[in-house]
Amino acid sequence: MTPLLPLALCAALGLACYAPATLAAAPKPATLAIVHAKVVTMDKSLHVHDDGTIIIDGGNIVAIGPAGLEKAYAAAQTIDAGGNIAMPGMINTHNHIAMMAFRGLGEYRSDDRLRKFFFPLESRMLSRHLINVASRQAAMELAVNGVTTVADMYYHEDEVAKAVRDVGIRGVLGETVMNFPVVDAPEPYGGFQYAIDFVKQFKGDPLITPAFAPHAPYSVSPQMLAKVQQAAEQYDVPVLMHVAEPPDEWERVKTKFPEAAHFDNELDYLDSTGILSPRLLAAHVLRADARDIALFKARDVGIAHNPKANTKGHGGLSPALEMMHAGLGVGLGTDGPLSGNQMDIVSVMGYAKRVANIRHPETTTYKPPELVAMATIGGARALKMDDRIGSLEVGKAADVILLDTHSLNMQPLYDVYAAIVYQANARDIYTTIVNGRVVARDGKVLTVDLDKQRQAWDQVTHEVAEFARTLNY
Amino acid sequence: MTPLLPLALCAALGLACYAPATLAAAPKPATLAIVHAKVVTMDKSLHVHDDGTIIIDGGNIVAIGPAGLEKAYAAAQTIDAGGNIAMPGMINTHNHIAMMAFRGLGEYRSDDRLRKFFFPLESRMLSRHLINVASRQAAMELAVNGVTTVADMYYHEDEVAKAVRDVGIRGVLGETVMNFPVVDAPEPYGGFQYAIDFVKQFKGDPLITPAFAPHAPYSVSPQMLAKVQQAAEQYDVPVLMHVAEPPDEWERVKTKFPEAAHFDNELDYLDSTGILSPRLLAAHVLRADARDIALFKARDVGIAHNPKANTKGHGGLSPALEMMHAGLGVGLGTDGPLSGNQMDIVSVMGYAKRVANIRHPETTTYKPPELVAMATIGGARALKMDDRIGSLEVGKAADVILLDTHSLNMQPLYDVYAAIVYQANARDIYTTIVNGRVVARDGKVLTVDLDKQRQAWDQVTHEVAEFARTLNY
Repeated sequence: MTPLLPLALCAALGLACYAPATLAAAPKPATLAIVHAKVVTMDKSLHVHDDGTIIIDGGNIVAIGPAGLEKAYAAAQTIDAGGNIAMPGMINTHNHIAMMAFRGLGEYRSDDRLRKFFFPLESRMLSRHLINVASRQAAMELAVNGVTTVADMYYHEDEVAKAVRDVGIRGVLGETVMNFPVVDAPEPYGGFQYAIDFVKQFKGDPLITPAFAPHAPYSVSPQMLAKVQQAAEQYDVPVLMHVAEPPDEWERVKTKFPEAAHFDNELDYLDSTGILSPRLLAAHVLRADARDIALFKARDVGIAHNPKANTKGHGGLSPALEMMHAGLGVGLGTDGPLSGNQMDIVSVMGYAKRVANIRHPETTTYKPPELVAMATIGGARALKMDDRIGSLEVGKAADVILLDTHSLNMQPLYDVYAAIVYQANARDIYTTIVNGRVVARDGKVLTVDLDKQRQAWDQVTHEVAEFARTLNY
Repeated sequence: MTPLLPLALCAALGLACYAPATLAAAPKPATLAIVHAKVVTMDKSLHVHDDGTIIIDGGNIVAIGPAGLEKAYAAAQTIDAGGNIAMPGMINTHNHIAMMAFRGLGEYRSDDRLRKFFFPLESRMLSRHLINVASRQAAMELAVNGVTTVADMYYHEDEVAKAVRDVGIRGVLGETVMNFPVVDAPEPYGGFQYAIDFVKQFKGDPLITPAFAPHAPYSVSPQMLAKVQQAAEQYDVPVLMHVAEPPDEWERVKTKFPEAAHFDNELDYLDSTGILSPRLLAAHVLRADARDIALFKARDVGIAHNPKANTKGHGGLSPALEMMHAGLGVGLGTDGPLSGNQMDIVSVMGYAKRVANIRHPETTTYKPPELVAMATIGGARALKMDDRIGSLEVGKAADVILLDTHSLNMQPLYDVYAAIVYQANARDIYTTIVNGRVVARDGKVLTVDLDKQRQAWDQVTHEVAEFARTLNY
C-alpha cells in the first residue's frame, strides 16, 4: 500500500497533502530526531520525559515531548537513544585549554610550581602553533566528555577559537590582558589591543563568543580594568577574570596599586572600576562573605566554581553553595589541564557536593538536581547565555548529550539526577551534539582529521617533553 | 620449512629438543603472555618496563622483562598491549558491595538517612537472594573498573563470597558481628557463629579470604572483640572493623560499655581487647593523633582510607597522609555503594591527593607514585597480602590490569604515575586479569551469564524501588 505521493515530497512541493485513508497534517521538516530518550530537560520545572523525543531543525530544538512526537516530523536523521539519558550539554566555565600541551608536568615538584616551572616553560614553548594544536586536542577531549561550551582565558585566543570551532563546540574565549609582557603581547597590557582585534574578528560567530580576559585583580591596574569594561560594553562581549584566588590577593592588589588602599575590601575596590557587572564571569572566588555575595548579586556577576582544581592547587574551599543559595549564576569548571587535569564536568558535580560537605553538614548542601543544574543551566546563567543554552527547551540551541544508562556504574537508576551526579562516568556520554550537529560519538570526534591532529600533537608534545626535561620536571 | 617435531610437543614429551639450524632452549610453558606493555610494576624500586613483557603460568607471574622475553615461552595465549599500561590490579579495601541494590536511594533526604531510611530498608528488603544478586552486580562493576581484590563487610557473607567467586575477583570478606539482631542473625552477636561457619566453609579458597567483621567499637562489646580476636587467630583469618568513624564514637563506646571508661582514649581501650593486631584492617580512622598512629604502627594495623565516602557522608578528613608517612599499610577504598556510589579506585587516587591538600600545603602531600602505591601495594600491605598481590613481580599472583593510554584524557603522557593518578578514567581500563584469568574486557565481564544476571537484577531493583517509594526516597 504505497501512498500516491510520498508525504515529504508532497510537503516539499508545497501541496496540501492527504495521507491515504486519514486526513493528516504534512510532516514538518527537521534535521534530527532523538527518540526513546529519558529527556532530562533542566527547564524551570525540571521536567523529565521518561520516553521522550527531541526534534531538532538546524541548530535549534523545535519540539520536545513524549514518544510519538517524531511522527509529525520528517527528520533527515533519527537517533534511537534506546532508553538512555538525553540532557543539555555540559558547560565548563573556566579553563586554559591550550595548557593541554603541558598536562601532567611538574606534579612532583615541592617548590613553587607556577613560577619556577611553568612560567619558564610557557615563556619558552608557547607559540601560535602549540596553542592551536593543544587547543584542538583539548576541545576534542571536551567534546567526547560531553562539554558543549567552554569558557577559556589564554593567549593567541584567535588560535584557540579556530581550534574550538574546528571541533565544533562552543567557546566563550577571553584574550588575556595583564601588566607584563606575554607571548602574544610584548608590551604590558598589549593583550588589550590584541583582544579588541580578536573580538572584532570573531564577534557574531555562531559558536565562538569572544571576550576580554583581564587576568586578575593583582595583575591589572584599575585604569586598565575600567578600559576593559568600557570596551566590553562597546563591543557587547563578556569579561572573564580570576577573582579571590590566592590567599594574599588583596594584599598584592594594595601593594601594586596604591589607589586600592583607599578601599576597605577588594570587592568595593573592584566595583569602583566598573568591572563588577553582568558581563563578568568571576573564576574561583575562594573567599566571599555575606556582604561580598550581596554585592556580586547586586551586580549580577556570574561565578565559575572549580572545586577539583581549587583543592588540588590552593587548599581552598569556595563558598559556592552560599553563592548559589543567594541566587547567583554559578557554573562548574575544571580550570586548566595543569590544575584540573581532567576536562570533564561529570566528575565535578559529585566533587562539588563532597567538598561542600567538608564546610557544611551533609544534609544542608546541594541536592542532586542542583548539581546537575550547576553543570548545565547554572553555567549558562553564569555566562548570561541561558536564553540560548543550558536546558533543553523549544527555541534553544540543540546542545544535547546522550548518556548511557546501561553501563554497570549507572545501575541501578532509581533517580536520574542522583545517578548523573554520583554514578556517571564521563565515558558514559556516548554522543555529543552541538548546535544540532553530532560532533562526537563513542569516544571519537567526528569533525576533525584525526591523523593530521595526531601527528601535530605528537610533535608538539615531543618538543615540550624535551624542554621540560631541562627544567627537571 | 616445518620442524620435524613441534617444539611445544617435543617439550611436552620431555625430550631435549633442538630447533632446526640453531641450538635453542626448549620454550617454557606459559598460559598467557602480555607483550608490548608499559609495565608499571609497583615493586620496591618502582621499576617500569617501557616496552615490557609479562609471562603468566596458571595463576602466577613467572617472568617480567623487556620486549622479546616472550620468545623463551610457548604461551597458550598472547595479548599485545600495544603500548598501553599494564599495572597491578587495584585493591578496594573497604566496601559493603551488596548495598549495590540500594545505590542512589535517599540522596535527597535532609534527615538521618542512615537510621530513618536505610535501616528500615535493609530490615525489610535484605535476603540471601538480594545479597547474592547485588553482590554479583557489584563484583562485575569492580572487575570492569580494574579492581581485582575487594574487602567487604556485610551479612550472609557466604552469598557475597559465591558472587565474588563467580565473577572471578578476589575477596577478603568479613561476616558482620554486632550487638543487635540483623538479617542473618536473629540473636545479638549471632553473626559470630555465622562467621565461624563461613570461615570454615571458605578457608583455603584460591580467591576468597574469609574474615571476621566486628562492626565497630560502639556496636561490639570488649568481651566479643576479645572472642573475635581469639577466633581470628585460631582460624588464621583477617579482621575488618570500622574505627574512628562517627565524631562521637568514643562517647558512644563509653556509654555502651562502662568498662571502656577506665581508659583515657579509644585506642588504648581497643588495644586492651587484643583487637589491634596485624590481622586488623581498620576502615576510615578519621581521627588519629601521633600517639594513636604510633600504637597502630606498633600493632601493625592496616588502614582503609575512603576519602570520597568520608567527605560525602561525614564531613571528615582522615589523617591518612600522616599514617602513610608513619609507615603503616594504607590502602584506598570506596566504602559501600550508598556512601561511595562509584566502585572504582582510579578516581580515588586523585581525590585522596586533593583532600589531603585541604589539610596540608600541596607541596608536602602525596607524590603520584605514592598514590598509585596506595591503590595497589599499599592496599595489599593493609590486608597483609603483599606477599601475593599488589605488585607485578615474579612469583606473585597474576592480577594485572591493562589501561589504555591512547584515550584523549591519557594524552599527553609525560609521566606514567601522574597520568594514572590525575588523568585516567576508570573506563580506560580495558582488560582485567585475576589469578591469570581474563575476567573482564572492554567493559564486559566474561565470566558470568549476563542475561541471567540482568533478569535477576531487574527483579531485585524493581522490588527495592517499590518498597523505597513507601519510605519517600
